[in-house]
Amino acid sequence: MAELELRRSLRFGDCDPSGIAYFPSYLDMLAGVLEEVFAAAGAPFPHLMRERGLGPPTARLEVEFRKPGFHGDELDWRVAVERLGRSSAEIRYEVRSRGEILWRARQTIVLTNLSTHKSTPWPDDIRDGLAKFMETHGDEIDPAA
Amino acid sequence: MAELELRRSLRFGDCDPSGIAYFPSYLDMLAGVLEEVFAAAGAPFPHLMRERGLGPPTARLEVEFRKPGFHGDELDWRVAVERLGRSSAEIRYEVRSRGEILWRARQTIVLTNLSTHKSTPWPDDIRDGLAKFMETHGDEIDPAA
Amino acid sequence: MAELELRRSLRFGDCDPSGIAYFPSYLDMLAGVLEEVFAAAGAPFPHLMRERGLGPPTARLEVEFRKPGFHGDELDWRVAVERLGRSSAEIRYEVRSRGEILWRARQTIVLTNLSTHKSTPWPDDIRDGLAKFMETHGDEIDPAA
Amino acid sequence: MAELELRRSLRFGDCDPSGIAYFPSYLDMLAGVLEEVFAAAGAPFPHLMRERGLGPPTARLEVEFRKPGFHGDELDWRVAVERLGRSSAEIRYEVRSRGEILWRARQTIVLTNLSTHKSTPWPDDIRDGLAKFMETHGDEIDPAA
Repeated sequence: MAELELRRSLRFGDCDPSGIAYFPSYLDMLAGVLEEVFAAAGAPFPHLMRERGLGPPTARLEVEFRKPGFHGDELDWRVAVERLGRSSAEIRYEVRSRGEILWRARQTIVLTNLSTHKSTPWPDDIRDGLAKFMETHGDEIDPAA
Repeated sequence: MAELELRRSLRFGDCDPSGIAYFPSYLDMLAGVLEEVFAAAGAPFPHLMRERGLGPPTARLEVEFRKPGFHGDELDWRVAVERLGRSSAEIRYEVRSRGEILWRARQTIVLTNLSTHKSTPWPDDIRDGLAKFMETHGDEIDPAA
Repeated sequence: MAELELRRSLRFGDCDPSGIAYFPSYLDMLAGVLEEVFAAAGAPFPHLMRERGLGPPTARLEVEFRKPGFHGDELDWRVAVERLGRSSAEIRYEVRSRGEILWRARQTIVLTNLSTHKSTPWPDDIRDGLAKFMETHGDEIDPAA
Repeated sequence: MAELELRRSLRFGDCDPSGIAYFPSYLDMLAGVLEEVFAAAGAPFPHLMRERGLGPPTARLEVEFRKPGFHGDELDWRVAVERLGRSSAEIRYEVRSRGEILWRARQTIVLTNLSTHKSTPWPDDIRDGLAKFMETHGDEIDPAA
């Protein structure tokens, strides 16, 4: 199995006076895309948070911006789970448009009890759901990275 | 000389349904703090962009979130220029509240011609202005990092 | 002809610590929906702004929030052009979820020359495109309003 | 007694590719200014929400945008409580820059129990705190409005 693929347009409100994407808007999009990953993994955020009292805050984020994104660009997202730890996961994002990589990110999330703010192991169903988006050999997002 | 210090409150709208800071809002704040760094360096963004046609988009960003920030927290920012290249700069941010580090970031910006989107060397006045916020030995933001 | 209909989910990042939609996020969505109206009218924003130097800033906005929106709600938008003036237009938005109206808005936009910031009459093609989304009798968004 | 006065700069990230303020960012600012009104009234949001289980969601909002705001503008806010009902309040905002009114808003908020999402009367201390920002005759924000 492999990546989740999504398409998002770069809207007017995501861009800044210099005419290109405002990077915090990219990360707001990324947070929405993570929400789609969990929904596709069978653990939609509203249920996860309200019924199970769990959430996956971000512990670490690395982003590399290669090319500017312009208002109106169609952004093609490819998302994969790179590593699944006991209570953490590493997610990898690649965002392309007009045939080239605009930016890439690697995000470490940690499953957390929303009352205590302590980490907690992945329940089996969520671990299995996320594992569907793990990269397999010969199917990496970016072997050169 | 040393860091720029600023204080910002964590507002209601910066937090999410799990009651803690929404990380893209932190990065929107960070973008505003970078704007203050340039103003303090004598190169306010509106003049830089409109009169000189230059801007410093982000090329790389690494963020480490250590502790959750809660609605109402007073955030104490310490910002320093860690490295000044020919047309790039590395900026370091540390955000504390309630006596501990909540999160830290390192951002690489590249001075860019806003028409061509090509990098361009720092003009002397901006380089000198940013150099005031360079760390000096014995005055680092975080010697352990 | 009639309204434009769109569906949007209420994401985690659109909600606040009280667990409901943060109203400025609703209006950020609305700005994105307006962009879709123009695309559907044959006048996509990127072309309108970059090639023709025109944009439709908001002159007036009235919003009525009736019921809270919760994280995960599917929002059903119905959008219509209520009035087309010489250089202005009145757009009406209705947002439903779980079978009831959550909120409604009426927005007046004015076509503006982006260099002079002066209003300018609708070109015929844009006027015709927007007219497709005008309400007709017996087909109103909300006859009681 | 009279209005609350605040100053906010219009940052890079608050503006859009047409070079002027993105209106949803104005309303995000407005939400932050409302938070300051409550703090000045002796009812800071974090305590109000977490300790008392109360919050003031917006029921109605009317905004008139008169002049574009540009990146770097210093925004002078004047805020007053126009009306205090049993569980609602009407807040009036006027935002000036460069000697003229850029935009104005009137917002109706309703004090709400955050568990039931039902309205609830203002406790006396909050009502008294907000009353300090009520307009008195001869001291209106904008007599012509």
